[in-house]
Amino acid sequence: MSAISVVMGSKSDWPTVKETCQILDQFGVDYDKRVISAHRMPKEMFAFAQGAVADGTKVIIACAGGAAHLPGMIAANTPLPVIGIPGQTKALGGMDSLLSIVQMPAGIPVATTAIGVAGAKNAALLALQILGITDAAIQQQIVDYRKQMHDQAAESGAHLD
Amino acid sequence: MSAISVVMGSKSDWPTVKETCQILDQFGVDYDKRVISAHRMPKEMFAFAQGAVADGTKVIIACAGGAAHLPGMIAANTPLPVIGIPGQTKALGGMDSLLSIVQMPAGIPVATTAIGVAGAKNAALLALQILGITDAAIQQQIVDYRKQMHDQAAESGAHLD
Amino acid sequence: MSAISVVMGSKSDWPTVKETCQILDQFGVDYDKRVISAHRMPKEMFAFAQGAVADGTKVIIACAGGAAHLPGMIAANTPLPVIGIPGQTKALGGMDSLLSIVQMPAGIPVATTAIGVAGAKNAALLALQILGITDAAIQQQIVDYRKQMHDQAAESGAHLD
Amino acid sequence: MSAISVVMGSKSDWPTVKETCQILDQFGVDYDKRVISAHRMPKEMFAFAQGAVADGTKVIIACAGGAAHLPGMIAANTPLPVIGIPGQTKALGGMDSLLSIVQMPAGIPVATTAIGVAGAKNAALLALQILGITDAAIQQQIVDYRKQMHDQAAESGAHLD
Amino acid sequence: MSAISVVMGSKSDWPTVKETCQILDQFGVDYDKRVISAHRMPKEMFAFAQGAVADGTKVIIACAGGAAHLPGMIAANTPLPVIGIPGQTKALGGMDSLLSIVQMPAGIPVATTAIGVAGAKNAALLALQILGITDAAIQQQIVDYRKQMHDQAAESGAHLD
Amino acid sequence: MSAISVVMGSKSDWPTVKETCQILDQFGVDYDKRVISAHRMPKEMFAFAQGAVADGTKVIIACAGGAAHLPGMIAANTPLPVIGIPGQTKALGGMDSLLSIVQMPAGIPVATTAIGVAGAKNAALLALQILGITDAAIQQQIVDYRKQMHDQAAESGAHLD
Amino acid sequence: MSAISVVMGSKSDWPTVKETCQILDQFGVDYDKRVISAHRMPKEMFAFAQGAVADGTKVIIACAGGAAHLPGMIAANTPLPVIGIPGQTKALGGMDSLLSIVQMPAGIPVATTAIGVAGAKNAALLALQILGITDAAIQQQIVDYRKQMHDQAAESGAHLD
Amino acid sequence: MSAISVVMGSKSDWPTVKETCQILDQFGVDYDKRVISAHRMPKEMFAFAQGAVADGTKVIIACAGGAAHLPGMIAANTPLPVIGIPGQTKALGGMDSLLSIVQMPAGIPVATTAIGVAGAKNAALLALQILGITDAAIQQQIVDYRKQMHDQAAESGAHLD
Repeated sequence: MSAISVVMGSKSDWPTVKETCQILDQFGVDYDKRVISAHRMPKEMFAFAQGAVADGTKVIIACAGGAAHLPGMIAANTPLPVIGIPGQTKALGGMDSLLSIVQMPAGIPVATTAIGVAGAKNAALLALQILGITDAAIQQQIVDYRKQMHDQAAESGAHLD
Repeated sequence: MSAISVVMGSKSDWPTVKETCQILDQFGVDYDKRVISAHRMPKEMFAFAQGAVADGTKVIIACAGGAAHLPGMIAANTPLPVIGIPGQTKALGGMDSLLSIVQMPAGIPVATTAIGVAGAKNAALLALQILGITDAAIQQQIVDYRKQMHDQAAESGAHLD
Repeated sequence: MSAISVVMGSKSDWPTVKETCQILDQFGVDYDKRVISAHRMPKEMFAFAQGAVADGTKVIIACAGGAAHLPGMIAANTPLPVIGIPGQTKALGGMDSLLSIVQMPAGIPVATTAIGVAGAKNAALLALQILGITDAAIQQQIVDYRKQMHDQAAESGAHLD
Repeated sequence: MSAISVVMGSKSDWPTVKETCQILDQFGVDYDKRVISAHRMPKEMFAFAQGAVADGTKVIIACAGGAAHLPGMIAANTPLPVIGIPGQTKALGGMDSLLSIVQMPAGIPVATTAIGVAGAKNAALLALQILGITDAAIQQQIVDYRKQMHDQAAESGAHLD
Repeated sequence: MSAISVVMGSKSDWPTVKETCQILDQFGVDYDKRVISAHRMPKEMFAFAQGAVADGTKVIIACAGGAAHLPGMIAANTPLPVIGIPGQTKALGGMDSLLSIVQMPAGIPVATTAIGVAGAKNAALLALQILGITDAAIQQQIVDYRKQMHDQAAESGAHLD
Repeated sequence: MSAISVVMGSKSDWPTVKETCQILDQFGVDYDKRVISAHRMPKEMFAFAQGAVADGTKVIIACAGGAAHLPGMIAANTPLPVIGIPGQTKALGGMDSLLSIVQMPAGIPVATTAIGVAGAKNAALLALQILGITDAAIQQQIVDYRKQMHDQAAESGAHLD
Repeated sequence: MSAISVVMGSKSDWPTVKETCQILDQFGVDYDKRVISAHRMPKEMFAFAQGAVADGTKVIIACAGGAAHLPGMIAANTPLPVIGIPGQTKALGGMDSLLSIVQMPAGIPVATTAIGVAGAKNAALLALQILGITDAAIQQQIVDYRKQMHDQAAESGAHLD
Repeated sequence: MSAISVVMGSKSDWPTVKETCQILDQFGVDYDKRVISAHRMPKEMFAFAQGAVADGTKVIIACAGGAAHLPGMIAANTPLPVIGIPGQTKALGGMDSLLSIVQMPAGIPVATTAIGVAGAKNAALLALQILGITDAAIQQQIVDYRKQMHDQAAESGAHLD
């Protein structure tokens, strides 16, 4: 019954997806996390996606690498917004993951973020921004988070050596 | 005071962005549309982005091509979710637009859709799915829209010749 | 009850997939053809893939473009060999389709052919070569087909002008 | 007289191809393995390919990197299905190998798998799926193997920390 | 009141940008250096860019990576020439940074240099060449610097072993 | 004795470079234009580059396509700033031109603009911005030009239909 | 018994290869031209390559597109220098042809020229330059040809309008 | 007065070019090696290229990385055949070097080999094959070298474990 569901295609995505979860933790927003492989667990993937609305999920975050079908196939099975994180890959850097996730045909969008860790963090923030539309407290947290990022960035320039 | 703001970096993006607007029209959801160039109208871009929450905007859709800075710079100036449509380009097909929009650094996400027309349609649908989280009527419209897509696709197979 | 099932993600793939069918026709091998969209018809896709063995299918050929999930998702739901044809695309030439189909994770292969029409023809020939392993008549047809290709190629050099 | 022949263009491909062989070992299916360089051993390559049917081979798996001609040239010399594994490369990640293998002209298909180790594993599984069409025991092994992958993937989600 | 302003999008760009500063130091030309993130410090970015002429700045050098908006957004807010250094990136090598910086739309140029360290050095030299147009001493320093590079390169060939 | 020299590698670059010249005409700034092929006229290229300072040239603009050596080789032979325009190409869109121009080694910068027509226009504007550092009238023209671009962009949004 | 053999993988390469032949005609150097498909005519390819030295051939020019194996496979079967022309392709522009030809493993070089028509012309000139090493008349023709190119290029600059 | 001249753009290319020299040493063919930077030593480059015929050089091998202008600019200044080795690069793997070398315009070919070490070895072999056209002893050495490669490759397959 969490507002945000975080899904990864393989346990090997966890070092990336952990960054997503750390931001959700930091914001104190409840979330589920699980491994659901599109290719090895297709039935669970369908069940998960088709049950997400009834389960009270509001936003789904899915990470996968290579021929990354997980975000798009979840998106095809739920009217909820799905955020896709392209995993970095060894051979092609993640270009394969990115194109497999972002180039969805008209009709079924996946909200794609950057390849790898930056995208994992941003997937959390994007989900929070989405919830923040109707949750003033979360939106305020985003504003505060950015203020903090701003101050750190601004301060960092004093220490170039 | 529309829930969705549609912005494009140049009037030359309109043939693409028109596809976004047609879907919003079809769903009967109110939206604003405007040209705001990140590079030629930076002040208006900032004013727009910084005023969007107060204006009652809930989701922003921004389309740009080449070194496409519009979606990311709007995102940097509002806590609202921003959807980015990479415009197709003549020299590089839109790979430049895609990377300029999707590869945002940690902290400021842009929800990126596919290059060109498919992405323009999906930006509308993604915005609607986001609104649909808390608006059961819109979510139902998404479900109905997909049913219609499903039926058309299913039916189309009978006419291969 | 055809040995070969030909599936495409959208009717817009038909001009490509028609080339597959023409070769199957030429060989006189029975096949089914249908539109099944991974994203718009996921239930049919699963039903099709999961029922394929029982239906007597031996080889599946699937064509899709962009974030092309159809071949891989069918492959995930059947122990039959699945051949994937990457559709040519407007923005990226088909590099998106190719990577979405070929870069499958360990465990679930898709036998990928070339982008576009050459790949469509080769998907048919590959399916026939697979059937030919245990069907001497088909294998002989492959040999004959190649003889014919050989003779045409050899003869063509006489007409350079 | 093995049903599956595994060929690599250089001994340096062995760390990749070993993954192919380990899966074939695990399935208990007989196979040959050998180094045949398209460029340094062209006569052996031709002799091998042209003799494969008579030798009782049913499926050929070939791995090569860079300007990877081995799979396609074997395919040109046998009516048997040929599976190509693109080797990962230092300079271009394996994009060169992939395009050299997958972009075969109409007439001579190569069933291409993913770049590197994932592709090596999948080449074995694809060969087994092909044999499984007419060998119920192998097809059942594929089903069992997938069940095992499924269970491992499903179980792995319990250990995210 | 320095003639050259060096800006980087994040402190993580400093190892690259340090190379820029070392050349400016070597030439004895005064410069400012600072961290201004386009996405985390947009107001400071605008203030900086809009005030640059009045501050006596003549050339701006900006380095950023990924969806690198900093050089282009500074350029959009000042009539001064802006030199952009594309940062090398982990997933895509810096191709994302390069395209985000160089593919500016007509109207707002960014003088782009090479990805990473070579580009950082060349940004300094380019700024100096620009100042050298009207400052004969700097132009002479460029000539001398090249003479030195020439002699080192010419001499280096004697030590191949 | 013009402040700006515009050079192209081939007459076939003229449709692109004409855009450069039109902006220079519009600003009323004197310039020379000529065809100097790096590969077919290397002696003239050297003579031109080595004589540019003495000729009173202040900024050089060079356009070339494919293995585009002209901007870099001119830059190697003059201490003046050189702006490079990558020509769009038929096979690779201009990625070849871009990398051949922008990826200069440390020591010899080329100020690279976008591929094709946008880059051609921006080369002129960049040259003018460089001259504008010490020529208040030109800098004011840049400001006015941008004001005009701004107004046209702002106005264009009223005509979306 | 011609010094230069020109081979193409398909009659569809003729419009490109014709440019090669026109330059050879212009130089008055004897050559053979033929279609030999690596994939459809492998035996003829081997016979041709293995007999080339005995036939009096000195340089071989081979053009192919996509998974272009012809130049490399000929090179593997003759000690003569082989020049490879990457054909332009519809889906990927010729990047597939280029990588398939140029990325040869250590041991068997192919002298690769540019994609498409420019490469076809240059293949002829390269072959002539090679013959010119020991044939002063041909070397002089190269010098004259360049003089003519030089003059045309130099003259063309007078007609920019 | 060596038949083969080996040139590199920077001493940093030596680890790659050493592989070229080792093969030339192995064949006992005389060669010169030197560092000539196209960008830092343009006059020496021109003098070298323009004097090569008179110096008795027959084939030139040139290695460079990034915006690799050395092979093409040498080629523009001599009627001798020039072989280009694209250096591997940190940011883009060597794709920049490859395109800068191979995509030469019609008129001035560069015989391009593979990126990095394989290309360095093949540049030597290609030069030897060229000399071998009129030097039966060298051509025989090529045949012997290939025999040795063949035997090593053939033997290597016995040691897969």
